[in-house]
Amino acid sequence: MTIHAVGTPAADQPLGPMQITRRDTGPHDVRIEIAFCGICHSDLHQARSEWAGTLYPCVPGHEIVGRVTAVGAHVTSHKPGDLVGVGCIVDSCQHCADCEDGLENYCDGMIGTYNGPTEDTPGHTLGGYSQAIVVHERYVLKITHPEDQLAAVAPLLCAGITTYSPLRHWGAGPGKKVGVVGIGGLGHMGVKLAHAMGAHVVAFTTSPDKREAAKALGADEVVISKDADEMWAHAQSFDFILNTVAAPHDLDAFLALLKRDGTMALVGAPATPHPSPNVFNFIMRRRSLAGSMIGGIPETQEMLDFCARHGITADIEMIRADQIEEAYERMLGGDVKYRFVMDIATMA
Amino acid sequence: MTIHAVGTPAADQPLGPMQITRRDTGPHDVRIEIAFCGICHSDLHQARSEWAGTLYPCVPGHEIVGRVTAVGAHVTSHKPGDLVGVGCIVDSCQHCADCEDGLENYCDGMIGTYNGPTEDTPGHTLGGYSQAIVVHERYVLKITHPEDQLAAVAPLLCAGITTYSPLRHWGAGPGKKVGVVGIGGLGHMGVKLAHAMGAHVVAFTTSPDKREAAKALGADEVVISKDADEMWAHAQSFDFILNTVAAPHDLDAFLALLKRDGTMALVGAPATPHPSPNVFNFIMRRRSLAGSMIGGIPETQEMLDFCARHGITADIEMIRADQIEEAYERMLGGDVKYRFVMDIATMA
Repeated sequence: MTIHAVGTPAADQPLGPMQITRRDTGPHDVRIEIAFCGICHSDLHQARSEWAGTLYPCVPGHEIVGRVTAVGAHVTSHKPGDLVGVGCIVDSCQHCADCEDGLENYCDGMIGTYNGPTEDTPGHTLGGYSQAIVVHERYVLKITHPEDQLAAVAPLLCAGITTYSPLRHWGAGPGKKVGVVGIGGLGHMGVKLAHAMGAHVVAFTTSPDKREAAKALGADEVVISKDADEMWAHAQSFDFILNTVAAPHDLDAFLALLKRDGTMALVGAPATPHPSPNVFNFIMRRRSLAGSMIGGIPETQEMLDFCARHGITADIEMIRADQIEEAYERMLGGDVKYRFVMDIATMA
Repeated sequence: MTIHAVGTPAADQPLGPMQITRRDTGPHDVRIEIAFCGICHSDLHQARSEWAGTLYPCVPGHEIVGRVTAVGAHVTSHKPGDLVGVGCIVDSCQHCADCEDGLENYCDGMIGTYNGPTEDTPGHTLGGYSQAIVVHERYVLKITHPEDQLAAVAPLLCAGITTYSPLRHWGAGPGKKVGVVGIGGLGHMGVKLAHAMGAHVVAFTTSPDKREAAKALGADEVVISKDADEMWAHAQSFDFILNTVAAPHDLDAFLALLKRDGTMALVGAPATPHPSPNVFNFIMRRRSLAGSMIGGIPETQEMLDFCARHGITADIEMIRADQIEEAYERMLGGDVKYRFVMDIATMA
């Protein structure tokens, strides 16, 4: 069955309308009519092949929400009419240690929602800037938020879990001082989630005009990271710092703010390296620099349930399908509060 | 009381004989007649002010073993005649969270055995290339090895604890695959200790001619780190890697060998930065790059007792006091198996 999508035929071409097909609904598959798809910075990197290796045609999109329209004969966990989501993962090996631990995101055989290998036409996966998707039931998440919040739930499938997973893994919670660096699509979710987990949250931004907005998101304190005095006042005080900034920047300025045994986790991947961090910043206080990539399927469900319980969604700006290139340019300029979401109904 | 020492009056001067004084033995002090002092790469960095900030005259040395000759009125833990050791720390604030946790090495007020602030003449601490030292009892360790091993125990006070502490902290033991990068003064201790802890130990060296020697130290496997095929065979397999190399090198080659959630800890501090590690190596498997600095006083005692129980000492080459510059040059060339130890009796 042919459906409408938005994608690009080559790295140097703008995104535009295209027709794609989806596979038939297999015995373990769930077919989803997509209502909204969030716009992630990774979409842009991939569409423009900035990480190299992009396969074309490329249809990005891995913050997918919609409604089940059909399920395969063996599917027990979802039924037609359910509100569901699909994030960055549509398949994995299902039997390695990572998959058995529910950390399919770290499985060597993890198949991304776009640009991953598949037997389906055209030989690689096509993402959520499209009217429908067919996904193995294991990778389909239940959404229990009220339906009128559906668009604002979409970014939870990537921005939400990408920040939730490291916050949980490194123990954000009551009694912990947690920093969130960068108040954009990921960072604004990081602040909301860390606050809801009960941590003392400090938001770091380069923009003094984001101070009040960061507090409104749930930050207990806001630090302008270019102000050395403000930074110094927090030296050696953080248990954990979640760094969402994908542009190369000085990691030492933040490493120095960690307590003994503190960790800073990177969730953004810059196209060129960060300046090399000073080894003394690691050694002198047994600090760690780590990374984290999205999250596993069980914890994505846990995150969605946590957000529904705490009334958490993303702050979004809705776009039409034909506004995607404009949205990318505005995203590059940091001109979005805080996540674009495409209304798939505008695609027909 | 004036004693003989070996030190230097300036960064650009060779080390040679000098006279220094030690304070009177205070109520909590232990006076030690030094028998041997290990030669650490840090000694050279400090003597030549390669880390900047060296105070002169500089008397290096923080791998000190000897015999107690006097104790203060309030000292209960040591008595004249005891074999004891002093490592990198001779004082700390004694009341912060780090000190209370027995991690005096991370105390902001930690006073190094040399180049640290003190009221004693000449206003900074002078190290173990000297006939005697006076140290607060808290920082004096008991040595239970046989006396004829005393010289080979000296390097445990820095090289031993610097490798023991991270191996313990990151859980080296049965069922764990542990790498040790660099088979020098620190690395050879790392291999011995990780082996004694029960881990599967893989030694990494750039020198094929160190292969047999590394196995003799206790390595289960040896990998020539410049051989990409040998390295690749160990991809994603390590729980922990202890990196002892102080020269700038490619960290990515080792980060890629860590399992999901694995950590590489740096214990060497290069004078110029390592090439910046690739963020994808952190993110893709939730890996960590960390650092560790020596160890606390209780765990230094634990390490000495562990070594005595397992018959572990350093492999050493003894030098006379007047051979220190020659030893430094040979150390820079990697020409020592594996630690020089100065016989303080040659100083008179």
